[in-house]
Amino acid sequence: MKTNAGNFFEDFTLGQVIEHATPRTITEGDRAIYGAIYPTRFAVPSSAEFAASVGLSPHPVEEMVGFHVAFGKTVPDVSLNAVANLGYAECRFHQPVVPGDTLRTRSEVIGLKENSNARTGVVWVRSTATNQRGEVVIDWARWVMVHKHSAESPAPETVVPSLADAVAPGDLVVPAGLDFSAYDTAAAGSPHLLGDYGVGERIDHVDGVTLTDAEHMMATRLWQNTAKVHFNTDARPDGRRLVYGGHVISLARALSFNGLANAQLVAAINAGAHVAPAFADDTVHAWSEVLEVAELEAPAVGALRLRLVATRGRDESMTLRGEDGKYADGVLLDLDYWALVPR
Amino acid sequence: MKTNAGNFFEDFTLGQVIEHATPRTITEGDRAIYGAIYPTRFAVPSSAEFAASVGLSPHPVEEMVGFHVAFGKTVPDVSLNAVANLGYAECRFHQPVVPGDTLRTRSEVIGLKENSNARTGVVWVRSTATNQRGEVVIDWARWVMVHKHSAESPAPETVVPSLADAVAPGDLVVPAGLDFSAYDTAAAGSPHLLGDYGVGERIDHVDGVTLTDAEHMMATRLWQNTAKVHFNTDARPDGRRLVYGGHVISLARALSFNGLANAQLVAAINAGAHVAPAFADDTVHAWSEVLEVAELEAPAVGALRLRLVATRGRDESMTLRGEDGKYADGVLLDLDYWALVPR
Amino acid sequence: MKTNAGNFFEDFTLGQVIEHATPRTITEGDRAIYGAIYPTRFAVPSSAEFAASVGLSPHPVEEMVGFHVAFGKTVPDVSLNAVANLGYAECRFHQPVVPGDTLRTRSEVIGLKENSNARTGVVWVRSTATNQRGEVVIDWARWVMVHKHSAESPAPETVVPSLADAVAPGDLVVPAGLDFSAYDTAAAGSPHLLGDYGVGERIDHVDGVTLTDAEHMMATRLWQNTAKVHFNTDARPDGRRLVYGGHVISLARALSFNGLANAQLVAAINAGAHVAPAFADDTVHAWSEVLEVAELEAPAVGALRLRLVATRGRDESMTLRGEDGKYADGVLLDLDYWALVPR
Repeated sequence: MKTNAGNFFEDFTLGQVIEHATPRTITEGDRAIYGAIYPTRFAVPSSAEFAASVGLSPHPVEEMVGFHVAFGKTVPDVSLNAVANLGYAECRFHQPVVPGDTLRTRSEVIGLKENSNARTGVVWVRSTATNQRGEVVIDWARWVMVHKHSAESPAPETVVPSLADAVAPGDLVVPAGLDFSAYDTAAAGSPHLLGDYGVGERIDHVDGVTLTDAEHMMATRLWQNTAKVHFNTDARPDGRRLVYGGHVISLARALSFNGLANAQLVAAINAGAHVAPAFADDTVHAWSEVLEVAELEAPAVGALRLRLVATRGRDESMTLRGEDGKYADGVLLDLDYWALVPR
Repeated sequence: MKTNAGNFFEDFTLGQVIEHATPRTITEGDRAIYGAIYPTRFAVPSSAEFAASVGLSPHPVEEMVGFHVAFGKTVPDVSLNAVANLGYAECRFHQPVVPGDTLRTRSEVIGLKENSNARTGVVWVRSTATNQRGEVVIDWARWVMVHKHSAESPAPETVVPSLADAVAPGDLVVPAGLDFSAYDTAAAGSPHLLGDYGVGERIDHVDGVTLTDAEHMMATRLWQNTAKVHFNTDARPDGRRLVYGGHVISLARALSFNGLANAQLVAAINAGAHVAPAFADDTVHAWSEVLEVAELEAPAVGALRLRLVATRGRDESMTLRGEDGKYADGVLLDLDYWALVPR
Repeated sequence: MKTNAGNFFEDFTLGQVIEHATPRTITEGDRAIYGAIYPTRFAVPSSAEFAASVGLSPHPVEEMVGFHVAFGKTVPDVSLNAVANLGYAECRFHQPVVPGDTLRTRSEVIGLKENSNARTGVVWVRSTATNQRGEVVIDWARWVMVHKHSAESPAPETVVPSLADAVAPGDLVVPAGLDFSAYDTAAAGSPHLLGDYGVGERIDHVDGVTLTDAEHMMATRLWQNTAKVHFNTDARPDGRRLVYGGHVISLARALSFNGLANAQLVAAINAGAHVAPAFADDTVHAWSEVLEVAELEAPAVGALRLRLVATRGRDESMTLRGEDGKYADGVLLDLDYWALVPR
């Protein structure tokens, strides 16, 4: 067999290291397509001048560009036969990605647990994206439920890794040179600095975007993510193309500009759940909740820990869970991340 | 409120200056997406070699790229609550935009007039886009009808600015260095020079393009234009996404290549009316009428003043208005502009 | 008439040379859009680092980017009034196209044959794309059936050019500097080198992509291909937009990564038939057959001659023709090409 059938649960062993194909060079073309597909307006990735004015030069692309590219590389090896993406943790952005950078990704299997049905198992991997200088750019843990080849295969020893609930503020990596001392709030689009946000505050980002198949496929392909369900109407019984979960993340993050325009840089992703599938014709809205506020060492730099919730249709009540503790109807994404914000 | 609710009629005062967020750097990615969304083939923006051969280096992007970016910045502040875009005037392109340029836009309120219904008013603004060197790149006047917050608010003093019907040929800005003396008509795609066009001549551009939602949304997002009606099927009672008027301008301009291949550069927009809304599945055609022919000082450079009309479906009769003086059925756009043409 | 009505059969004469408008500069934006529209993952065009590691720097774009741009230029002059694209032959890629290159295309009429119905004729052209240094980048022969203006026009002398069934391995042009000695199979995504492929071997590329109108129109516009049938629902009686045949080529080539990840560079196209039309909502799959295996002079470089077949729906039986010798139902494309592969 010269084609890739993907890995099944039995193919993973604890400590196994997978070098993912294929390296990918980021370009100004990626920035432009990202901006055509997501309604992003954050000043740092939008303007080379603004980025330079806060110490970032050459001009970084949106953090999620790097994340999706790095993540996409893992799909053919890790999640081609996945039943579900179960979660993310400990994702840190170590340095900005700039046009000309070439990313490659390596994953190590850090946990395995067969499910009681003997048909599936959970695989935990820690993935690391490096650039052309071998420097770490992004790393993260992720766990997925994967089909077993055969219910007869013996179960491996269960190892469940211990993962932090959230990256501690002191563990956030501030990009070298970042300095918000001369931050231009008028150019950035909002006067609200770190101190203006309080824990528990919720922000309805108001705007909504109705999804199309062409757009989510283009985005997902740009990241070289090859999961069939996103592209092929024959891959699911309902004949619909499942929207890549990362598409909803990027869309919600872009929508959050309206209310969080100064949440310039994503520094870490603490946790993420793709609560419900999204499809073309769904109209996606977003709201955020402030979970934590932290001052960092870098000049005038602070961090907001935010819950970013994407919903199908607008929920002005911003309800995450019902009284039964389950996610409310219409919730698509529940993402917990850290953003760097001027203080 | 941390989200932007947009300005209502009462929020505008005569002489008010608004610095629009967020600056935006133009890249080769923008050129490529523009070429993927509009069927443009003008030789100057298509070929760096051709552009250099007429004195333009580095390689300019299509003028409308700069216009849409500069215009998009004004939307959150000027027209988020607009009932209608009423018109443009005195739009001049002061210098070519090249990849690497960062544009920002500032607007000044130059006129106000409350409507007799006391529910809406007309706001005139003069907007100026500057680059990273602070030089003026594009400026234009525009007037929009905006909702009042409350019918009870007192009306401001009525001030209607005096705007020129058209930019005079002597006021057109020819890009520094432009020289059409060695113009290669074979490469450009047409043998027809300035002298071959006569006032009153009409040209049916023949080709048509059927619109899709994915494409007009991608274009409109690229310009960071955030008006809800373009993206969200819940924003209008009919559940359709209104096509951004500038999308129709760029589409018609691109279609005009077939008949006006040597109308290389847009120098000014004299007036523009979005006569009827456009939606996905409409097939857009275009025709042009020559309004004025002018010789300019620059070597072998002339200017054609053109009426560019976009229609839903092809109208081989090229009828702008019916006998009642109203725009003919199917007319979407009536744009009056100046193009620089070799003579 | 200032608009281009295209050429009819009577307009072509043997030996006629046509300089096609308009030159086009390739950019990183083109690479990015190509990667958004086609699921390509070949390591050379994906990674500047990988490309440099095999001797290719600056970073080439996918060969088909150059081909489509060069081909698109010929459409307004050669095939605007075409009934059908009948075939390709002797297409060779003489050097990689890199961002910054400006391509122009010239065609010479090398054959003419009126059909017995006197209403159409076949035109053979040899087209040559050159770069800004005047160097040949790609050349190919192509023949199309074109409408006559009038059935009354006299038939020209019949001249049918002699075209090779395939480019001989010794005539393939290996890019200057290409050296696969240090080829990294893990990065490239497959351990299978030249010697692992045997003549007659068939590979089912498994994955499928369901087409959308927005995507094929964007791709086709990017190549400045103006044929109406791709863009205008009024151009065909069935109201459908015909997918540009080259779109299916690029899609099938990208899908072939899964099984042919090391078929890095397209060196020649020997023959190609667009067997059936493709439309939005068709799900395109692909399979390949190894036709010939050749070792070349360049270090560690070999060549695979491959038949690349695109189908509507997946055909695991990989049947090209039925017992009647006709193409099997569902076959869209039958392309015979040479790829450069590490040995």
